[in-house]
Amino acid sequence: MRQIVQCVPNISEGRRLDVVEEIVDQVRQTEGVQLLDYSSDYDHNRSVITYVGSLTAVAEASFRLTQTAIGLINMEEHQGAHPRIGAVDVIPFIPIENVTMEECVQGARELGKRIFAELAVPVYLYGEAAATPSRRNLSRIRRGQYEGLKKAVQDKGRQPDFGPPQLHPTAGAVVVGARMPLIAFNVNLGTDNREVADQIARAVRESSGGFKHVKAMGVTLEERGEVQVSMNLENYKLTPIYRVLEMVRREAARYGVAVVGTELVGLVPQQALIDAAEWYLQLESFSPEQVLENRLR
Amino acid sequence: MRQIVQCVPNISEGRRLDVVEEIVDQVRQTEGVQLLDYSSDYDHNRSVITYVGSLTAVAEASFRLTQTAIGLINMEEHQGAHPRIGAVDVIPFIPIENVTMEECVQGARELGKRIFAELAVPVYLYGEAAATPSRRNLSRIRRGQYEGLKKAVQDKGRQPDFGPPQLHPTAGAVVVGARMPLIAFNVNLGTDNREVADQIARAVRESSGGFKHVKAMGVTLEERGEVQVSMNLENYKLTPIYRVLEMVRREAARYGVAVVGTELVGLVPQQALIDAAEWYLQLESFSPEQVLENRLR
Repeated sequence: MRQIVQCVPNISEGRRLDVVEEIVDQVRQTEGVQLLDYSSDYDHNRSVITYVGSLTAVAEASFRLTQTAIGLINMEEHQGAHPRIGAVDVIPFIPIENVTMEECVQGARELGKRIFAELAVPVYLYGEAAATPSRRNLSRIRRGQYEGLKKAVQDKGRQPDFGPPQLHPTAGAVVVGARMPLIAFNVNLGTDNREVADQIARAVRESSGGFKHVKAMGVTLEERGEVQVSMNLENYKLTPIYRVLEMVRREAARYGVAVVGTELVGLVPQQALIDAAEWYLQLESFSPEQVLENRLR
Repeated sequence: MRQIVQCVPNISEGRRLDVVEEIVDQVRQTEGVQLLDYSSDYDHNRSVITYVGSLTAVAEASFRLTQTAIGLINMEEHQGAHPRIGAVDVIPFIPIENVTMEECVQGARELGKRIFAELAVPVYLYGEAAATPSRRNLSRIRRGQYEGLKKAVQDKGRQPDFGPPQLHPTAGAVVVGARMPLIAFNVNLGTDNREVADQIARAVRESSGGFKHVKAMGVTLEERGEVQVSMNLENYKLTPIYRVLEMVRREAARYGVAVVGTELVGLVPQQALIDAAEWYLQLESFSPEQVLENRLR
């Protein structure tokens, strides 16, 4: 069975598109890797690149991308709205098919080690690959950003996982890690009362006592005359789409409001949808091997 | 996007396994075709072979399989429990991905034409490829079987679609056609009262007024102390799994009985499960392109 790891590096260049192309070319040229998407944001001065392949292939593409990016991006000259600490700001490995999170963690740590060893850019490990719980959260590693971290890197608790307590003079540092795929899931409600969406968001999100791995907020959809519970599901295996949706439906009913529709934004792993089908259809002992397409080479 | 046509020929040999291997080898050796499964039944003296590929590749494999089978199987000597009219009894083309039913119908007709032209075996077209409504049903074409059809083939309304009104002296005739994938779907009920399963089967199946494209019967599951509504869904696009299941749930509730679980038997196209997820999750404007795996080469 084909192994699929998704990788979504964020690089600190979103304006010089020729530079972005040169960096993306490294991914295009790595055998066994398929470039799925890339997009650049001018205000953030940042690009997001998405590719998939086996763990080995994806790690190789990520190394080459980093090698090229640090030669082309100078953090001393970088300005942008999005928080960042390095030319290659973050490299997450995401298990999709026939690969475990443990394997992705291992792959992320090896890549981190290699980046420091061969490129002399210090590396932080985050997410599931973090060495300590305080490093799981990316925003905590990024605190102070490139400019602030230049000094703070020497502080206890801020030192890199690989490399000395000193940033690379132009590339800063790289954060490498592993995480579950993120599912952006929005639920539209049959009311224009924003308060209902806000209340439901509070009920289902982790930060206020709801489901773990769920971020949620209320949003007003002016054109539709409706409100929306806009969510990020950060671990669809432990906190699946259907369970969160059923709770949103139940909470909405408490206000006499119905769910009128939902949206999945961007890419979603096949398994997240099949899990929903399995649950709603009450399937017993269903195996992914039964999906005809999964039997194909 | 990769085109996937499934093909499931039934051949009239289930005892001489070396002969079956030689015939299956033709599929193995056809480029662009993937053999998914094959199995032989001694009592039926019949084998079922499953493979997939592009329409062109699958048609080529089917032709070679037919060519080899008619050289190795003599209908004059064939005995078996399953109705049949030829050495290669039936060849259905089934659209799975990135191919329309119309294209499969066209492919089936071309294959039928070629089989008669190059192998001199007369061909009937059935299912969606049938030239007249009376030929849609396979069992009507097979009436009288090989032995009876030898004479009946001259009757008005029984003559082949390709070839003269005369069976091949050893290979009989071939039925070629196109149909939707068949989904075997069973619903287990929280009662041992068989009458409840029988009543629900009658309510949901086409033959007694229920859903089109649904066959259903009640079954007793002795070991579980439950009964089951056992169904074949013959067109999951027009009569989807979720709609049939919801009606079964509703009918069961009318007897105060709950659905305790369901089963999908054998292979199922990914789209049938994604359709269920879409419906239950109330997804708006979801595209198959959003399934990460569908973006892969």
